[in-house]
Amino acid sequence: MVRQGGRGGRSVTRRDVAERAGVSAAVVSYTLNGGAPVAPETAQRVLKAVAELGYRPNQAARALRSGSTRTLAFLTVDADDAIFTNPIFAEYVHAVQRAAASRGYALYTASTPGGGRARTMQELREFASRQVDGVVLLASSEQQLDPAELDAVGVPWVLVNTEEAPGGGNSIGADLFGGATVAMGHLVEHGYSSIGFVGDAPRSEPRRRAWREVCAEHGVEASPLFDVDFTREGGRQAALELADLSSPPRAVFVVSDRTALGVLRGLHECGVRVPEDVAVISFDGSWESAYAWPGLTSVRQPIEEMAAAAVDRLISPPEEASHQVFPVELIVRESCGAHA
Amino acid sequence: MVRQGGRGGRSVTRRDVAERAGVSAAVVSYTLNGGAPVAPETAQRVLKAVAELGYRPNQAARALRSGSTRTLAFLTVDADDAIFTNPIFAEYVHAVQRAAASRGYALYTASTPGGGRARTMQELREFASRQVDGVVLLASSEQQLDPAELDAVGVPWVLVNTEEAPGGGNSIGADLFGGATVAMGHLVEHGYSSIGFVGDAPRSEPRRRAWREVCAEHGVEASPLFDVDFTREGGRQAALELADLSSPPRAVFVVSDRTALGVLRGLHECGVRVPEDVAVISFDGSWESAYAWPGLTSVRQPIEEMAAAAVDRLISPPEEASHQVFPVELIVRESCGAHA
Repeated sequence: MVRQGGRGGRSVTRRDVAERAGVSAAVVSYTLNGGAPVAPETAQRVLKAVAELGYRPNQAARALRSGSTRTLAFLTVDADDAIFTNPIFAEYVHAVQRAAASRGYALYTASTPGGGRARTMQELREFASRQVDGVVLLASSEQQLDPAELDAVGVPWVLVNTEEAPGGGNSIGADLFGGATVAMGHLVEHGYSSIGFVGDAPRSEPRRRAWREVCAEHGVEASPLFDVDFTREGGRQAALELADLSSPPRAVFVVSDRTALGVLRGLHECGVRVPEDVAVISFDGSWESAYAWPGLTSVRQPIEEMAAAAVDRLISPPEEASHQVFPVELIVRESCGAHA
Repeated sequence: MVRQGGRGGRSVTRRDVAERAGVSAAVVSYTLNGGAPVAPETAQRVLKAVAELGYRPNQAARALRSGSTRTLAFLTVDADDAIFTNPIFAEYVHAVQRAAASRGYALYTASTPGGGRARTMQELREFASRQVDGVVLLASSEQQLDPAELDAVGVPWVLVNTEEAPGGGNSIGADLFGGATVAMGHLVEHGYSSIGFVGDAPRSEPRRRAWREVCAEHGVEASPLFDVDFTREGGRQAALELADLSSPPRAVFVVSDRTALGVLRGLHECGVRVPEDVAVISFDGSWESAYAWPGLTSVRQPIEEMAAAAVDRLISPPEEASHQVFPVELIVRESCGAHA
């Protein structure tokens, strides 16, 4: 029962709506597009006429005239498991959408599976051909997108969830090093003598660097390093390995909530108590972390603020491209054993 | 450093690309839009020229010519907390996006906060004005969208995550009654003598009906009913109430995974053991349920299949609108105490 609007063959025009509502064509336009105030009762009459006639103002035509589609796109890259299984990414999509909507922009979303840079560039060109006003890119760290190549597509872009891109450009990220340093300081302060690291992170990654440096500074053993996939299952595997060790670490710093949820699950399976046997601290501060058991102590990324900043960069591009770092906050719950 | 494509004031045309790549304009079109095979090396040359020149084929113009934007929209309604905090909804968005992309359609996503039907209708008209080819609506049960009003907007639509709409129309949902009956049967079969219900569901809701009917049929006490918000926190509150009872039920059926995750959290807080003291069974079978502790026994909704069916209904509308029900499957994990 999919009925198309319109009557007969001719499509409904703004003039038809005006006639039905007993107003001028300009008032129809003001009601639908803003530009001048319209009395509430008048607006209601116009909207009623729009619905009754099935009027669809043609935004494609409007875009050709104005040069703007009032549309943004959010492009993510699926890693080992689907992007939305990472609670922090789901939160990002939601926040970008809200930020776009509150500024009058619609949002395309797309996630490309696994595949490398070529696939992402192809998606970006597809959105460019749809005349979007800008693209928020949430790429995985392995992707190494090239700012020059991105620029060549000719659509404004901003990278989020990233460190400063080697080639410059607009990018936004949380203070990973600062946040991890605070989290590690919290563990050290509470007397844990050995702290492990769980996550897929190269030596230079800021969270991994903070783990090593804080341990070194305080004479705490930085070991072992569980180099596992950035997934729930990766975290679970690390926990199973940990439970098998003859002398497990007293605490672990986990690179993300998604991975940490797998760690908790694995430790429960093996009867290892959190935090009594092993304390756990994590990064992201997602919704899930609050309802985990025990509640995850985690470094909260300010997703809403970062999403809003990303959208603003696209709508009102700054003179000079730059990397913007957002401060983070340690949220102390039960898993670190230091909440009392 | 947001550079716009193009050279000087004139915008780049397909002919410019053809010239740079040393091919005909038709080959440029075939490469970008399909329609005829293009040799891989030729295609690469074309794509290189596209990138170098910053060519953006104008889809707005193309849409005006063809009458199709090859675009769908996914419209959700946020309830008490943000939509993406419900893992099953996040999974839905992802699955619809994948289904749309694999059929060559881009996807808008939007979630409207709380607000009732008027707000949803406004969003729908906004997408209609963007000339989308169809809209997938994931509305909350309280919304009671009117198929006739939806039809009046003049854009193909399909409701998902729903029972049959009272006024007809295209809709898709899982077999809630059948699934809940199997889950309840599983609990009864394992000898639980009293089974509670957790969730925000009216008396006629299929899961709540199945709970009552299966209990009645087997002489099992159907009590208590925890009428709480459809959120993690709602589930947690139910658990705190349950732990306070002098004679708590031996098992609970929870209306969704999101709520069940809150139930688990609340029971842990109170030192109530799952499944030893209270068995828990749930509905949805989301990613989170597998990594909960203990793992949630849950009725799995076939999200991917339902999302693909929804997209197909929009792209190739059936002659007659109808409600399509998808079968579900009980996934047995630890929380029901009957996995061994």
